[in-house]
Amino acid sequence: MKLYTSTFAPNPRRVTMFIAEKGIAGIENVMVDLAAGEHRSASFLAINPLARVPALELDDGRVLCETRAICTWLEGMYPQPNLMGEDFEERAFIEMADRRVEFHLFAGIANSVRHSHPGLANLEQPQFPDFGASQGEKMRDVARWLDAELANHPYVAGNRFTVADITAFCALEFARGLMKFHPGAEGMTHLQEWRDRIAARPAAGRP
Amino acid sequence: MKLYTSTFAPNPRRVTMFIAEKGIAGIENVMVDLAAGEHRSASFLAINPLARVPALELDDGRVLCETRAICTWLEGMYPQPNLMGEDFEERAFIEMADRRVEFHLFAGIANSVRHSHPGLANLEQPQFPDFGASQGEKMRDVARWLDAELANHPYVAGNRFTVADITAFCALEFARGLMKFHPGAEGMTHLQEWRDRIAARPAAGRP
Repeated sequence: MKLYTSTFAPNPRRVTMFIAEKGIAGIENVMVDLAAGEHRSASFLAINPLARVPALELDDGRVLCETRAICTWLEGMYPQPNLMGEDFEERAFIEMADRRVEFHLFAGIANSVRHSHPGLANLEQPQFPDFGASQGEKMRDVARWLDAELANHPYVAGNRFTVADITAFCALEFARGLMKFHPGAEGMTHLQEWRDRIAARPAAGRP
Repeated sequence: MKLYTSTFAPNPRRVTMFIAEKGIAGIENVMVDLAAGEHRSASFLAINPLARVPALELDDGRVLCETRAICTWLEGMYPQPNLMGEDFEERAFIEMADRRVEFHLFAGIANSVRHSHPGLANLEQPQFPDFGASQGEKMRDVARWLDAELANHPYVAGNRFTVADITAFCALEFARGLMKFHPGAEGMTHLQEWRDRIAARPAAGRP
């Protein structure tokens, strides 16, 4: 198997952290240079016509794209430790938590960064800085909601570590680097404590 | 069970169409008036603190939010007809197709409408019309990709009807109503033919 991935991009990091949590060995990483526009090259468009990383090329040559779909496949191939739910009911509730942090937290951070950071001007064309700033505010509303949730249970989806923690952590690490967002400094102490706890996991390091 | 839903909003429509395709009976619909801001009322925030429809209240009182997570639960409870994959591998490839049309097509349409349509000024504050217009262009790029895909296989995820068709159809119906987007008129004949075929399904009608 080959994982088409990219340093610093938050979605590929979700998959590499998922792989590390599972302890899966033997997947070859193929680096795609987003800053150089390599994801828009003819050779990469043949792998993913939507020009996005990550993409997982299976041993039979089929290509699976979209972060969470790749995780679903890996969870099926490597069931332990379970990160996405033991039965359909748990899968649904973990998916709810995962989507909440993906659509509302992660997307707000990504929109904010892509539309306001000068370093991403070649990735997001055109940028709309006012929209980016507004998304930065909305992202904070969601972060405050998550902070309150984490006062009640230790992990994003409840009492155990799941894929939803990976999604939220990779989003917050992206915000930490490019938005200088530090939850503790803004009064979100539960979110900061959770972030520091997840950051201490061996799988949280850069691959 | 109670489904908190709203007329005309595309995400609730995905769930009601999913329910209709499964032929599930006995779910009570509770209408939430988005135009009147009812989703931000204290009573609704107690159901979904993120102020969004749809939300499914289970018989034991737990509330499941997020469109696709609700579908995952319903698929588990009512397995036939299968709409999300028979095994983990098919589930992963259908999830890839579903996410592609959700993140790239549906989100582009939603951003375009929410930021440019005067009728949604009270739902999206502040609106950024230039951003909305730009998203309308990007959405068309994804629609052209989907049009080319549908030249090769009859449904969004391949050879059979799945949840990914529901996501794409509800997105396009929203674009049809509020962006006056008609694929056939813009040369996307495969997409138009697919849309007309899906629209003819009994479950595609307004609930």
